[in-house]
Amino acid sequence: MSRSPGRKQENHKISRELFVLTYGALVAQLCKEYEKDEDVNACLDRMGYSIGIRLIDDFLARSAVKKCRSYSETADMIAQVAFKMYLGVTPSVSCNSVTGNEFSLILDKNPLVDFVEELPAERASLCYCNLLCGVIRGALEMVHLEAEVSFLQDRLKGDAVTEIGITFLRKPEDRKNRRN
Amino acid sequence: MSRSPGRKQENHKISRELFVLTYGALVAQLCKEYEKDEDVNACLDRMGYSIGIRLIDDFLARSAVKKCRSYSETADMIAQVAFKMYLGVTPSVSCNSVTGNEFSLILDKNPLVDFVEELPAERASLCYCNLLCGVIRGALEMVHLEAEVSFLQDRLKGDAVTEIGITFLRKPEDRKNRRN
Repeated sequence: MSRSPGRKQENHKISRELFVLTYGALVAQLCKEYEKDEDVNACLDRMGYSIGIRLIDDFLARSAVKKCRSYSETADMIAQVAFKMYLGVTPSVSCNSVTGNEFSLILDKNPLVDFVEELPAERASLCYCNLLCGVIRGALEMVHLEAEVSFLQDRLKGDAVTEIGITFLRKPEDRKNRRN
Repeated sequence: MSRSPGRKQENHKISRELFVLTYGALVAQLCKEYEKDEDVNACLDRMGYSIGIRLIDDFLARSAVKKCRSYSETADMIAQVAFKMYLGVTPSVSCNSVTGNEFSLILDKNPLVDFVEELPAERASLCYCNLLCGVIRGALEMVHLEAEVSFLQDRLKGDAVTEIGITFLRKPEDRKNRRN
């Protein structure tokens, strides 16, 4: 959101279409390689994880955000700063649990599926955008937040919206070390 | 699913870092799959070609450019409009032949290799960005221009610049139908 001094904004931006088509080529390649959708999903998640653990440095440098003090702040940060910065969209956020560690990012429009009509029937279990889950998981891990991230709804599968679920995993030492 | 009349321009832009890292994951995946660099290069070129034949519609719609009247104009258009639009950089163009059908796009900085230090020794023949060649080739073919596109120099391989060569292939009927 904030523009870091010196670097021109245009240098950070590229056209989404090229990215979307390149991402499509990546998924298609994995579908060629792996017969089972689960294997494709796992591979996308792994790739995303590797991206996330590198992207976090870029994010922290460019966003200049402060340390989040709660899971809720972190979820808002992902939606309002990170998604906006990297994908040009801002999902809405909802909290799904009384324990305050489960959140949903809800996308009316998923920028990664612009050129995808619908999934082929034989690929019904494919989580086409699973890379995003891995990216979030990897980036969070680098700021010492362990989380499970997965698609809960997907417009590509006929759902009304696309929903990414994030469950922050509380560690046993959380209670001891908590310092607000 | 469609919600696209009046698309805002900001919606077309995403952060380059995510693209660059995703592209890196794609190349790494292909390197896992294919032992020979030539096979990886060919696969990237094929993928790029499939992207180019789809991206050209987006390009023509958004750039609203007029038909080029010469190979030279076409090369300038690729460098000044297409590269700028999709990758946020503008290569310089030089003509390499007296016959006027060979051009070079010269990039001081290749936006696709931001996170790549250098190629591993065992991948010395890898054309890391070969997808771009395929994209250009595919897009040109859709406007009825056959061309050979390949990397002539690559900073990743220690060259001073990155240079993409485009050779427009004259068809026998060119002379007959030429109407300047």
